Parts: sequence; C-alpha cells; structure tokens
Amino acid sequence: MAKLVIGMVAFEQATNLDFTGPLEVFGKLAGCEVQICAKTRDLVACEGLSVIRPTVTFADCPQVDVLFVPGGPGQIDVMTDDETIGFVARQGQAAQWVTAVCTGSLILGAAGLLQGYRAACHWMSRDQLPLFGAEPVNQRVVFDRNRVTGGGVTAGIDFGFALAARLVGDPAARRLQLALEYAPEPPFDCGLPERADPDTVTDLLGRAAGLLERRWAASRTAADRLNQRGTGQ
Amino acid sequence: MAKLVIGMVAFEQATNLDFTGPLEVFGKLAGCEVQICAKTRDLVACEGLSVIRPTVTFADCPQVDVLFVPGGPGQIDVMTDDETIGFVARQGQAAQWVTAVCTGSLILGAAGLLQGYRAACHWMSRDQLPLFGAEPVNQRVVFDRNRVTGGGVTAGIDFGFALAARLVGDPAARRLQLALEYAPEPPFDCGLPERADPDTVTDLLGRAAGLLERRWAASRTAADRLNQRGTGQ
Repeated sequence: MAKLVIGMVAFEQATNLDFTGPLEVFGKLAGCEVQICAKTRDLVACEGLSVIRPTVTFADCPQVDVLFVPGGPGQIDVMTDDETIGFVARQGQAAQWVTAVCTGSLILGAAGLLQGYRAACHWMSRDQLPLFGAEPVNQRVVFDRNRVTGGGVTAGIDFGFALAARLVGDPAARRLQLALEYAPEPPFDCGLPERADPDTVTDLLGRAAGLLERRWAASRTAADRLNQRGTGQ
Repeated sequence: MAKLVIGMVAFEQATNLDFTGPLEVFGKLAGCEVQICAKTRDLVACEGLSVIRPTVTFADCPQVDVLFVPGGPGQIDVMTDDETIGFVARQGQAAQWVTAVCTGSLILGAAGLLQGYRAACHWMSRDQLPLFGAEPVNQRVVFDRNRVTGGGVTAGIDFGFALAARLVGDPAARRLQLALEYAPEPPFDCGLPERADPDTVTDLLGRAAGLLERRWAASRTAADRLNQRGTGQ
C-alpha cells in the first residue's frame, strides 16, 4: 500500500517548536512518509538558532495527503508571498487533511482554505481569522471536517497526537504518546490569557504590539488579495 | 553585565524534541545567550528528518554557565565517546547548572556528574541511573542542588520553563509560558506507564527491547570506564 505523504511546509523565521512538535509525532507513524517542503532545498533558518532541512521543493513536491503549515514571526512575510501561498492553496485543494498550528492557520486562511471553517490560532492572533472567512475557536485543537488547526506553538504536540489518532488509529497514537512520555506538568498555570494574571497578559501584549500590528497589516493585504481572486481557489 | 551562557550539546541521532523544547525557551530569555556545542560546526543529523546547526565546537566553547544535554537513540553511542563525554565532564565541573532531559541524564552519569544526585530520565531507561551512582526519581523534573534533569522527550518543555524561572525569575518565565501558549491538553492520558493501559506498555517495551539492550550495554561499559577513572572527574 502506498504510504500516506505528510507535507510539512517550512519557511524562514518559522517557530521551530510549531514544526518540531508535530514532526516528532508524524515522523514515527507507520505507513506515513514526511516530506519537508520549501522554496528550495537550502537550509531554512527558523526564529532563533534552529534550522530545518527541506526534503523537497514546492516545484517538485507530489500531491500530499496531509498538508501542515506552522506559524511564527516569519508567517507575516508568507502571507503576501505568492509562491508559498500558491503552493499551500494548490496542495490544500486536494489534500485529505489540511492542517496548521499557531499562526499557520492565518496562512491557510490567506490561501483561501478556511472559508466557512472553524479554526484555532495562537491566542494573540486568533481575531484575525474572520478576515479569511474563518470562525475563530478558543480551543487547543479544532477539527472541522478535514481542516485541523491547533493553538499557539506548544499546541502542536496535542495537535500532532490528535491527528495521529485519526491517521493511524488510537492504539498507535497512544503508544507514541507513551514513547514521548507526554504527560505534561507545566510549572505555572498561565498558558492562556484566561488563566494568566492580568499583569502577565498586559506585559506580553505590550511587548508583542509591533509584531501584532505587522501581522494585522499582512492579514489585511492577504485578505484583499484573496477577495480579488474570488474564492482564492 | 555578562550574559549567562547556556551551552546545549548536540550529537548525531539525538531526539530533536528533547533539544528544541528547551531551546525554544532558553533562546527567548533576556540576559542569556545560547551556544549549540558539537564536535564540529557541521550540521548534526537528529533522529528522523531534523537537523541542528552548532554555533561552536567543543574545542572552542568557553566555559558555559548552564550545561544542557538531550537524549535520544544517539545517546547510546555518546556513552562511550571520549570526546563528547570529556566535554560534558569538563564543562559540568564548573557550570552553575548541570542539566539534561530524557536519556541525556545517562550521559551526565557517564561523565561522572550525577554521583550522589537524584535524577530523572526517560521512564524506560531510568533504572540505568544507579550504574552511575545516581538515584532515579519518577518525577517530571528533578532539581537536586545544581543538577536539573527532566523525564522523557516532552518533559523538556516543563524542564525548560522550570529552569527558566530559576534563571530569570517567575514573571519572565510566566510571560514566556503564555507566549508559547503552554496549556497542554494531551488527547490521551497515557504518557506514563502508570497511566497507560498494560497492552500499550507491553507493546512499546516489546518494540523497544533491542534499543534498551544496546543502551544497557553502553551504560555498563560507560560505568566501567567511569569507575576506572575514579570519580570520573
């Protein structure tokens, strides 16, 4: 039987944990083959010191069965990058599963793949989803038909196991969760704005203000382009 | 004020999530500088498709303030690799914090750095710690004086935030936990053998038997060498 191809999109200044969480899960699923897709085969520099090594270019990538898009600061430039948005739109039309984590769902949105779908996103940028006809959901992992989206950064691990269960069944997903010893114990209960103290939220939003402004601007431009293309498909 | 240098050891066939979880935290701490240390500056191929790009060679690395060692299948070869064990032993003698995640704690053990210390490890290999004079602890993150160790793979994220709180204070660690949206919701409650159903545990242990046998053999050899060196320091 042919392997299920999981195509993971890599781009400059992606957040590596958005990508590595799901990769650590997907890479260990029997019957699945991961392809890391990027503009070129050159090493992709993530935010910070991490790098991703693509296995295939957008041009050479076969139709994938599962399309995955991470987020991170680099998502802002991707929103108006025709080559990457075009790849995601093309692949997303025929993929069995169209998925993203963190602000990667905004990229799915810019590619016209979330119109009429419920979706998750990093909590700070979730309110940008309606620009693309998507309904933002305050939930760690959101399944809506074949669209699967996760919240910010670390949600990629929960997303990875949840999707793995659908791809290879519960027993294999459970076995992998035990292998990766995924029984989290966060030192603080502050991973969502509803749970963090107000000072922490205010402080973080203040520091992120410039980033969020640039993200809004990119989302507005991307939404305009999408509307000009019609459905974007 | 001089930055706190966090030295993260990279080696072939490390588990990338062991490394990337803590890196995503450490890389965003004010007043800290991460160095990725390896034998050469060449790209390090992890287990699966991930790669790590070193920033400094063992030979050129200054004394670090925080020493971090990941685990993974490649840990087995590291146990008897004089160059890597020598680097870890040297750095560990003067570092303010000596840390590891997953089977990285066995590497600390092989370097003579856990004698008389309590330590965590991946649950499948925790029982190898006594070979190095360490007391295994069934706990997600273990602080014992300046030794800080985490359980398997995903424990690196809990470890990262817990250590960050000690390095830069609670408010900054909380802010980062909110930024990385770390409010985990595992799809299953099976990340530890005590919580998983017996079939899952048996199945996984069966599949891991060969790996565990090789790991035991490497640990015995490493323990013999450590004993021959005296305290190993």
